[in-house]
Amino acid sequence: MNKVQILELLELVKNGGISPKDALLRFQIAPLEELGYATIDYHRGLRQGNEEVIYGQDKTSEQISGIVSNMLRRGLSNIIITRISQVSVEFLLKQKIDLEYHSVAKLAIVQHDKTAHQLGSVLIASGGTGDIHVCEEAAVTAEVLGSRVTRLYDVGVAGLHRLLSKQKILTTARVIVAIAGMEGALASVIGGLVSCPVIAVPTSVGYGSSFFGLSSLLAMLNSCANGVSVVNIDNGFGAGYIANLINRMEGIQQ
Amino acid sequence: MNKVQILELLELVKNGGISPKDALLRFQIAPLEELGYATIDYHRGLRQGNEEVIYGQDKTSEQISGIVSNMLRRGLSNIIITRISQVSVEFLLKQKIDLEYHSVAKLAIVQHDKTAHQLGSVLIASGGTGDIHVCEEAAVTAEVLGSRVTRLYDVGVAGLHRLLSKQKILTTARVIVAIAGMEGALASVIGGLVSCPVIAVPTSVGYGSSFFGLSSLLAMLNSCANGVSVVNIDNGFGAGYIANLINRMEGIQQ
Amino acid sequence: MNKVQILELLELVKNGGISPKDALLRFQIAPLEELGYATIDYHRGLRQGNEEVIYGQDKTSEQISGIVSNMLRRGLSNIIITRISQVSVEFLLKQKIDLEYHSVAKLAIVQHDKTAHQLGSVLIASGGTGDIHVCEEAAVTAEVLGSRVTRLYDVGVAGLHRLLSKQKILTTARVIVAIAGMEGALASVIGGLVSCPVIAVPTSVGYGSSFFGLSSLLAMLNSCANGVSVVNIDNGFGAGYIANLINRMEGIQQ
Amino acid sequence: MNKVQILELLELVKNGGISPKDALLRFQIAPLEELGYATIDYHRGLRQGNEEVIYGQDKTSEQISGIVSNMLRRGLSNIIITRISQVSVEFLLKQKIDLEYHSVAKLAIVQHDKTAHQLGSVLIASGGTGDIHVCEEAAVTAEVLGSRVTRLYDVGVAGLHRLLSKQKILTTARVIVAIAGMEGALASVIGGLVSCPVIAVPTSVGYGSSFFGLSSLLAMLNSCANGVSVVNIDNGFGAGYIANLINRMEGIQQ
Amino acid sequence: MNKVQILELLELVKNGGISPKDALLRFQIAPLEELGYATIDYHRGLRQGNEEVIYGQDKTSEQISGIVSNMLRRGLSNIIITRISQVSVEFLLKQKIDLEYHSVAKLAIVQHDKTAHQLGSVLIASGGTGDIHVCEEAAVTAEVLGSRVTRLYDVGVAGLHRLLSKQKILTTARVIVAIAGMEGALASVIGGLVSCPVIAVPTSVGYGSSFFGLSSLLAMLNSCANGVSVVNIDNGFGAGYIANLINRMEGIQQ
Amino acid sequence: MNKVQILELLELVKNGGISPKDALLRFQIAPLEELGYATIDYHRGLRQGNEEVIYGQDKTSEQISGIVSNMLRRGLSNIIITRISQVSVEFLLKQKIDLEYHSVAKLAIVQHDKTAHQLGSVLIASGGTGDIHVCEEAAVTAEVLGSRVTRLYDVGVAGLHRLLSKQKILTTARVIVAIAGMEGALASVIGGLVSCPVIAVPTSVGYGSSFFGLSSLLAMLNSCANGVSVVNIDNGFGAGYIANLINRMEGIQQ
Amino acid sequence: MNKVQILELLELVKNGGISPKDALLRFQIAPLEELGYATIDYHRGLRQGNEEVIYGQDKTSEQISGIVSNMLRRGLSNIIITRISQVSVEFLLKQKIDLEYHSVAKLAIVQHDKTAHQLGSVLIASGGTGDIHVCEEAAVTAEVLGSRVTRLYDVGVAGLHRLLSKQKILTTARVIVAIAGMEGALASVIGGLVSCPVIAVPTSVGYGSSFFGLSSLLAMLNSCANGVSVVNIDNGFGAGYIANLINRMEGIQQ
Amino acid sequence: MNKVQILELLELVKNGGISPKDALLRFQIAPLEELGYATIDYHRGLRQGNEEVIYGQDKTSEQISGIVSNMLRRGLSNIIITRISQVSVEFLLKQKIDLEYHSVAKLAIVQHDKTAHQLGSVLIASGGTGDIHVCEEAAVTAEVLGSRVTRLYDVGVAGLHRLLSKQKILTTARVIVAIAGMEGALASVIGGLVSCPVIAVPTSVGYGSSFFGLSSLLAMLNSCANGVSVVNIDNGFGAGYIANLINRMEGIQQ
Repeated sequence: MNKVQILELLELVKNGGISPKDALLRFQIAPLEELGYATIDYHRGLRQGNEEVIYGQDKTSEQISGIVSNMLRRGLSNIIITRISQVSVEFLLKQKIDLEYHSVAKLAIVQHDKTAHQLGSVLIASGGTGDIHVCEEAAVTAEVLGSRVTRLYDVGVAGLHRLLSKQKILTTARVIVAIAGMEGALASVIGGLVSCPVIAVPTSVGYGSSFFGLSSLLAMLNSCANGVSVVNIDNGFGAGYIANLINRMEGIQQ
Repeated sequence: MNKVQILELLELVKNGGISPKDALLRFQIAPLEELGYATIDYHRGLRQGNEEVIYGQDKTSEQISGIVSNMLRRGLSNIIITRISQVSVEFLLKQKIDLEYHSVAKLAIVQHDKTAHQLGSVLIASGGTGDIHVCEEAAVTAEVLGSRVTRLYDVGVAGLHRLLSKQKILTTARVIVAIAGMEGALASVIGGLVSCPVIAVPTSVGYGSSFFGLSSLLAMLNSCANGVSVVNIDNGFGAGYIANLINRMEGIQQ
Repeated sequence: MNKVQILELLELVKNGGISPKDALLRFQIAPLEELGYATIDYHRGLRQGNEEVIYGQDKTSEQISGIVSNMLRRGLSNIIITRISQVSVEFLLKQKIDLEYHSVAKLAIVQHDKTAHQLGSVLIASGGTGDIHVCEEAAVTAEVLGSRVTRLYDVGVAGLHRLLSKQKILTTARVIVAIAGMEGALASVIGGLVSCPVIAVPTSVGYGSSFFGLSSLLAMLNSCANGVSVVNIDNGFGAGYIANLINRMEGIQQ
Repeated sequence: MNKVQILELLELVKNGGISPKDALLRFQIAPLEELGYATIDYHRGLRQGNEEVIYGQDKTSEQISGIVSNMLRRGLSNIIITRISQVSVEFLLKQKIDLEYHSVAKLAIVQHDKTAHQLGSVLIASGGTGDIHVCEEAAVTAEVLGSRVTRLYDVGVAGLHRLLSKQKILTTARVIVAIAGMEGALASVIGGLVSCPVIAVPTSVGYGSSFFGLSSLLAMLNSCANGVSVVNIDNGFGAGYIANLINRMEGIQQ
Repeated sequence: MNKVQILELLELVKNGGISPKDALLRFQIAPLEELGYATIDYHRGLRQGNEEVIYGQDKTSEQISGIVSNMLRRGLSNIIITRISQVSVEFLLKQKIDLEYHSVAKLAIVQHDKTAHQLGSVLIASGGTGDIHVCEEAAVTAEVLGSRVTRLYDVGVAGLHRLLSKQKILTTARVIVAIAGMEGALASVIGGLVSCPVIAVPTSVGYGSSFFGLSSLLAMLNSCANGVSVVNIDNGFGAGYIANLINRMEGIQQ
Repeated sequence: MNKVQILELLELVKNGGISPKDALLRFQIAPLEELGYATIDYHRGLRQGNEEVIYGQDKTSEQISGIVSNMLRRGLSNIIITRISQVSVEFLLKQKIDLEYHSVAKLAIVQHDKTAHQLGSVLIASGGTGDIHVCEEAAVTAEVLGSRVTRLYDVGVAGLHRLLSKQKILTTARVIVAIAGMEGALASVIGGLVSCPVIAVPTSVGYGSSFFGLSSLLAMLNSCANGVSVVNIDNGFGAGYIANLINRMEGIQQ
Repeated sequence: MNKVQILELLELVKNGGISPKDALLRFQIAPLEELGYATIDYHRGLRQGNEEVIYGQDKTSEQISGIVSNMLRRGLSNIIITRISQVSVEFLLKQKIDLEYHSVAKLAIVQHDKTAHQLGSVLIASGGTGDIHVCEEAAVTAEVLGSRVTRLYDVGVAGLHRLLSKQKILTTARVIVAIAGMEGALASVIGGLVSCPVIAVPTSVGYGSSFFGLSSLLAMLNSCANGVSVVNIDNGFGAGYIANLINRMEGIQQ
Repeated sequence: MNKVQILELLELVKNGGISPKDALLRFQIAPLEELGYATIDYHRGLRQGNEEVIYGQDKTSEQISGIVSNMLRRGLSNIIITRISQVSVEFLLKQKIDLEYHSVAKLAIVQHDKTAHQLGSVLIASGGTGDIHVCEEAAVTAEVLGSRVTRLYDVGVAGLHRLLSKQKILTTARVIVAIAGMEGALASVIGGLVSCPVIAVPTSVGYGSSFFGLSSLLAMLNSCANGVSVVNIDNGFGAGYIANLINRMEGIQQ
């Protein structure tokens, strides 16, 4: 509740338009719904600009279904469920929930609003074929949230000319998501070629001393290129979310 | 050299305006200057939108002075030197180099162009008093590069109302830099309150199992709030640089 | 054997009420029972105030059954078995052992004494839905040991108002167990809002650089809030046990 | 501001006792004082039961002095400054600040209220002579906050009878702080002997594979004894603070 | 495109043999083929001296098949696929692809050119029987690329005379690959006995504090013997590749 | 070949009893047998006092069988195979190999010489029931190699009197193997009670921040008790082997 | 107090030779002396066979002096002080304490009893010149405790023949201490050459990825040679102590 | 002693040219010199092709001087001393030792044989100005050992065209040493551009999560480019040594 809303409410109290007790209730009504196992937050759309996103990994099919149903009942749409299993997807479909499933990204969208325009320009670049599920998680997320996305996969630094031959695509992006496992050098190389923000996603692709993504994580955090920030290992969703935020920035009102 | 420039050069060759040998030279002239210990890159201003930044930490006074002098001779200004020691600053001043020094941030600006406007709105928020040098490195960087900066220091999560009482400042920022050591929770808490991008900077403030910033680094990478990306421990410069990039984004041309 | 008991025994010896050899035996009889694979400690109830707790994870069904049977034969009740598998539960039930099973908590209670009162006020707060099995392990443990428990789940810091709307519950608790994975910020935020002791439980919920709970463990150990102490990753039982100990503290006798 | 206070304020508004605008101000006045480098929180005494504690390690003498002066002007006393250097102590004394300094604990108390009673029974036990500064930080903290403290130093497990000969002291404590470096076994051994809560403090005493306290930290987190929770390496203050909280628990009001 | 090729092209432009627009195209045609999930690099054979190697581990059978088919269509042969599963091998065989499979090495060669000579002398030495799959990956790789390979397995340092009895084999090798898990001492011992380059491969063989190969990795990196360099844990392919490069070095042209 | 043997051989050469070429052969005949995948070392019995031990974990049934068969053909007996799977045991039995299998210890003995006396006194003490397989690996190893073994299981430090009640057994051992997971305090506590050497074995029993045995490993390495040395995590065999070596030490010949 | 002593005391009570109250006292008199900062344990000589050893590193000169003085007053001699600084040595000498100082080993012996024989045979072998202070700590410790010591320094595995040329010394030792930094391979190589117990001491000698001794520690723990156990990094004292224990083992009484 | 030499000796014995006892001595004379603190190995020149290299870091000036003097007395020259301090250099110079000192590389050469030719082509490439001391250690080492060296400094991947403009230098090298701190991407990028072996040297240049070189070490070990092997952090000497070995390879004798 913001300053203006409080002032309005206080005026109402003063004018007798509402009793102090009822006004108190207004202060107390939280835009929350408690399901026991989850506390849904219906104001996030207002506060953060996007609806609640459901992180599917540690939830049962029943829990996901319960959260989705309550959100739909409130009239929400375009609900993203990340890291959802095939089993949970089928569970939701059996309950006649309108759901679009991206199997490579392991990401589902409930009541996808496809009329929305995809604007601007987000580039998703990846080091190798094995990173594709992380790439698609980032790409689909940014698209669902309203960004136009270009994919540029398997352009790792061991064959640098693959990347260099795409300079135009690189330089016209408003924001780039650089996704790589192993030594994670892609973020630094791209960061040195462009002037837009780069979101780096280390992946757990690799073996031995990659230590499940630690090598690329550290490399990206230590990038000597300016403009690179990093999200968690394999966190395609997070990168897509941030890329969309930045891509859709409005110009400064002077 | 871009497509248009190559085409123009080829037309010149065709028309005899330039000989093939001289055209070859044009392809080969690199916009680089080699000092032996450093290879200065004068095209970065064009390519990345900002001039070369000098990372002062592992360089001698003589090396810094040499690089700066060459850049000035080429007519560059607004040159940022990060992590520069008091000793090196005095060395440069003795050589009559026009230099502005921010001692808390350990950051110097050579031929600071103060006529430039600081636009938009970057918020720098920090967890504790001990993080100030990192905060100032971020703040001065963003200011020099052209952003208007608001400082909100010592608002760590152990006294949450300090942060909550500043909701308006939080919600009007175009981008926020959240700087904290110890458990690094500030990034998640701010990330949950706002809808703009948050750049998180873990600091090495702490002791024992903070392991020189590892605890806050991991906490920030694992933030459950959307919109948070992370830079290296104590990397105030990097965060200020990215914040400026995002803050100064133009609106999408539809 | 305490000072008074030794003195009584020595008086008996002096008076000829017992021979020196028999007295020696008394010194030597340990309140232990050896099963080969386990050494049951029947005095712990006296010494520590609670009966032996059986850690089920690395034990076979036969071993658990053997230990339980011996304890029952000695007349013990309210025996807690933690991290017990479904298979072992069924094994015990087949042997007609009176057992109550909490499947989410993976915790069983043999001969649960339900007549006991649950007193005071322990609050179990969790960051997300995925932490529920740890929460329930803590909650059921504290309840069985005699504490009244309030559950407050899915109130992680990314949606801070979910937590802030529950301030009254927070401030009336005698002790709080804060359970969270990922960045583990919940402990610090709660620790800053209350004046009672907070037991923090990092969980292995997360992925990538959460490194199986390391990120939340380090964050909680580095909490800048006063009053927070930490137990092992996923150790719901330990937290519930300590919370009960603190909750049931008697007032100081001046 | 709690429910009752809001209701009273709203009644005032209704009765015209206060204008809506002034009521709004009441909602907004934060009990904070901003010094630029620090945001002092004067309500913590009410909210958490103790005054603000100043963590001295990363602050300059000037910063500490500024914070203390402002707190004194507000009438606060019994202010604890932890990890304060000899230099800062002398700086404060020159400014005629009434200060008591504990050099081993590196802890200062401004305007120490010595009339307060020290109640209950907190036991501080340590493994070796090298842990003394951490022990004293814990002991003095608990004493200043109102607890009666018993010290039992150099009773490490390599000479177990040193500890066993003190069983009575162990069993009469309301809460025990177990402080040890190296293998940190003291916490488990004490935890197995008593029924009260044990706060374990790993110290950085050791060498080689103690890795600056990591060995004792992990050992204490993995304690097989019930009732043990852990604070950060060398965090004597935190342990003393929690021990006092627990020691001063009131009995349950049934 | 090298200097000579550019000059030739420019002469053509001058002479009107090619239009500027077509010349531009020549600059732009990248020797790449994009399959969506992979960007094949057909110039690597020229640039690096060997054809593209396919890392099979994170690729589906369909992806591997697609890449191989495209390479074959371009006329390539002797294509190495590392870490390929039995399932993928069968998938390729069903499609009539001419493939030789080394099951211990989990390595396949498509259209193996067996007429090529194996020259020089690469020695593959291993510490134990459990390292064999890594050894064979190295050995087959070096053989396919054109090196003569000698195998010397199970000569770990715990039975030093096994190694010492093979001094002649050691001293006649042009390059040695030393493969060992556990404490990884084999690399140092061999490095001290010979004057040729030694490529050390730590393996994940071991248990407990070998931490999946970390112990042998660190040991090999810290080798006190001169001439030892290290590749990733279990990276038999990489070692075989480098060993072949070194083995086939030409003499210096003075 | 020792000094005396070389001298004898040289005398033979001098006397013409053997030709130089044949003498050379004698120098070269290594007491090794090469199976391709393994190099068996038949002199270890002489050199190290025990026959070759086969580490079964990373070997196939065929490899184990091949090594055993060759050893039997040479007339060896009392061959220990550690970490052998049930499958491999059955494979060996089908081939009529005389084998005794200890399923808890996962250890097999081929042609066990049961007529040998078990001498001296090795004590195997463990912290909990979950450590039994490591304990039995140590116990059976020491027994097969000729030591009398006493088992003292589940005497962890959380119930210290279980251990203290066994002081006589502790003080009469010639060497003690202390086996524990979690916080690994058992080694220090036992080390402080006895004057004989203690071999500490950390186990991977535990969860969360035990990090697969790291916590007990570090604790044992940092033991403040004198006389404690450590072997790898879960390395029961190694501890049993060393304990037997020490137990069977002869007295000093003055 | 052992069984026989208790029985004697009980007989005394029965016979009236001592009153129950006085007998109780006998049970309670602990052979300890408390100095406030230290609790000296005078029975360790009986219990563990050697007097108390003073770990000098974390103690002030005054603390060391206080402990030594009390021990001397009780008539103890041959007191070892490890890791004592030059400053503390001079402090003790000023107080006329009879002290022998080994500066390389940083070890002092108070009232060294030089009449004692040094028996048996302990071999101290080291990898490099930089390990000497650890070697000498081990060597002097073993000598003071009664062992004959042979030193074999700088025989690291990079020059294997240095070690192999000393086979006779190796095979006649009763116990060997193998000390090495960097890759720590010395322990495995020696372990494979001898049949006596080997105590391995990793040292912090090295740089980069030796990580202060971690590389050699892990290598030694993972030794594939039988008979090797490990102590803490740089723990020369511990190794010398254990080596002496083993060296002085008596033969088995059959 | 090789096969031929043994045969010759045996023939001598047969012919009575030498007595068996004297022949035995020949077998036993080790080409070693023992200085107490060091065991010099004069055969390494024969065995490994280069003289003994002295690692100066952990040695006193006296120790270095002693080793050098003995080597000179034996007639050796071109002796390399790495990581030698200014103090030790002056100590050696005072003793009239003919020494050339490279202060940036901290490397000294005793009796440098400058008449030797520097052959072939080793390229030393570095990421930044801060890596120079490691680069020079590598470069001088390779030069002293007989290689022609080209230096290419400050060509890190953040400004990729700096590297790409040097393609000719890259492709004409026989072996490349790639030296970089921070994210260590240089090795992968160079590895992808060339067909010769690349020796990667991670440096400790960086801060925060570079963890003293760990980030670049892991990145280089996980390089996706073929042909890259790695040495220890900051190990310029090792890289220069290996580069020279490879550079000076002779061609295969068919």
